[in-house]
Amino acid sequence: MSPPSAPDRSRLEAEIAEQPAVVGRLLDRQWPAVRAVASAIQARAPGVVVLVARGSSDNVAIYGRYLLEICNRQLTSLAAPSTVTLYERGPRLAEAVVIAVSQSGRGEDVVAYVETARAQGAITVAVVNDGGSPLAGAAEWVLECLAGPELSVPATKTVTAQMTVLAMLSLALAAATPERNLLPLPAAVERALALRPEVSAFARTLGADGPSSVIGRGFGFPVALELALKLKEMAYLRAEPFSAADFYHGPIALVDPSYAALLVDVGGKSSEAAWTTAMAIRERGGQAHLLRAGDLAGWKPALPGGRLALDVPLAEPYAPVVALVLGQLVAFELATALGLDPARPRGLHKVTSTR
Amino acid sequence: MSPPSAPDRSRLEAEIAEQPAVVGRLLDRQWPAVRAVASAIQARAPGVVVLVARGSSDNVAIYGRYLLEICNRQLTSLAAPSTVTLYERGPRLAEAVVIAVSQSGRGEDVVAYVETARAQGAITVAVVNDGGSPLAGAAEWVLECLAGPELSVPATKTVTAQMTVLAMLSLALAAATPERNLLPLPAAVERALALRPEVSAFARTLGADGPSSVIGRGFGFPVALELALKLKEMAYLRAEPFSAADFYHGPIALVDPSYAALLVDVGGKSSEAAWTTAMAIRERGGQAHLLRAGDLAGWKPALPGGRLALDVPLAEPYAPVVALVLGQLVAFELATALGLDPARPRGLHKVTSTR
Repeated sequence: MSPPSAPDRSRLEAEIAEQPAVVGRLLDRQWPAVRAVASAIQARAPGVVVLVARGSSDNVAIYGRYLLEICNRQLTSLAAPSTVTLYERGPRLAEAVVIAVSQSGRGEDVVAYVETARAQGAITVAVVNDGGSPLAGAAEWVLECLAGPELSVPATKTVTAQMTVLAMLSLALAAATPERNLLPLPAAVERALALRPEVSAFARTLGADGPSSVIGRGFGFPVALELALKLKEMAYLRAEPFSAADFYHGPIALVDPSYAALLVDVGGKSSEAAWTTAMAIRERGGQAHLLRAGDLAGWKPALPGGRLALDVPLAEPYAPVVALVLGQLVAFELATALGLDPARPRGLHKVTSTR
Repeated sequence: MSPPSAPDRSRLEAEIAEQPAVVGRLLDRQWPAVRAVASAIQARAPGVVVLVARGSSDNVAIYGRYLLEICNRQLTSLAAPSTVTLYERGPRLAEAVVIAVSQSGRGEDVVAYVETARAQGAITVAVVNDGGSPLAGAAEWVLECLAGPELSVPATKTVTAQMTVLAMLSLALAAATPERNLLPLPAAVERALALRPEVSAFARTLGADGPSSVIGRGFGFPVALELALKLKEMAYLRAEPFSAADFYHGPIALVDPSYAALLVDVGGKSSEAAWTTAMAIRERGGQAHLLRAGDLAGWKPALPGGRLALDVPLAEPYAPVVALVLGQLVAFELATALGLDPARPRGLHKVTSTR
């Protein structure tokens, strides 16, 4: 592998900086396509939606599951693609709607899952950045992410684009005039990017080892998952992600004075969970740092740990996009402080294909 | 909290040692109850089964999902209970079969999910050790685990009992004479327990820091999840669990010479994935240790890392119970070597209830 190079790093920064434009482009252009998919789903009235993805896109799928189950009351499952590919004995999917999420559209297992589902009669949708990819060819419906080429290995703008598409789809399934809820999103992402000095200071409070874990609940959980993955890819930091509820079922035993958790709060119901978990960690002698983005009307008094907060006029289901942008910047700053090149994780390629 | 005490440690050892008897008791007594539940499920012919659980029981639920999707081709979702409890806006469940898995039957969110599902008209099943618990009262159908009281905080015999009940249910849904496949299970668990000296030697090869991660694929994945949780609870070791497929999508960047992965192999298709992942980790300079239990006919030549292997006449879907018993012993031995009391994780109680 080549040594770290400044152009790679600059390119990753540029891709992160493009996100307000990418999100804005989706809101400008993709409502008709999203509405058409929503109509097809509504016509089927499926008992279950199945989301299928890997890596960062799987974290987006988990976000999609919270959107669909909470905002649309639509039972939604996250696929285990190995049932189809490794075992060649997957579930019956004829009555389902299968939504695949992928940046490259080239993951072999995700493509195989969609092909199998479509052959059985399922409605299939690809949320994908590359409209000419095998996944786009395999699915009946395609929702392109319009993020432009992403060349850095750690996915950033394609992830927030996928999240935006799923938020649009959830809104189109729920409301006659869905556009309003996401209007503040591009400006909110822009404000997250402008918070760079605060992010840098926050990253320093996390220290050279980074956080021990990243914890979120509900709409904060997919952000915690993706931030933990960015910390691994960009900075080789081993923080494990947890849902706040699961953290109490065993992992909380790890907390001692050296333990530093990073809590994700996207406003609404997730705020209370982040706060309660932070207090539980502090009561056990550990450290709790807070990353918050959303409608922070319910702002609580300050905890002793570090905090990074951005108040934006977005309801809890849509704030995760903004919180993740802050998280990307935190990972980028931690990597830079450690003298690493966040754009070139060792041993990774842009397209990962597993069977 | 009281200091570590020998009686606690001995009680945990005794609970681990009871597992052949617990599994045997289930196979002796619970086929009629399991068959009745299978008939009720078949009469509904549900589009989707939803498994709901937390902590160790959630790892069992993930095992149940592989059983149902692969062996029964039954689409199966893992619930996010917070959609119902935290957000009070969960999915429509009227057409589903909801199976809750819990040791205590007292987790508030799992009980609430079952109550909500039952009120909507779903078939509800509780797989629970305490037949007098709120969860058993909330569900229409109850499958008791008959594991007897479990007093140690780290769950062991109740976990393998839950796994056995789900394996029985999957078999009862698939076959006219399901008993045969599990007949070798009690003796296989007994043989795992008899491997204690080998387990002790294997734990020493993992060193004082324990493994960096625990990795499995397919039927090996739920074992990896539960073993990583036991390492946290018993020995305060932070190994993160991964599915082998997800490991390639980012986390593999962590591998360097200090990185030691523990691979779980339960025979069949999981063997190839464990082997391939071990080789990929070694190619990147990391260490790979193998924990294998199952029908090891496809045994590969030795890797340089440590290995613990038990050849038992169980097909891949049923070998995870035996592999987990080996994993429990590995966590117990690591804790003991570190001078810790594996029976008393700090900050944990036997019943964890989250909303």
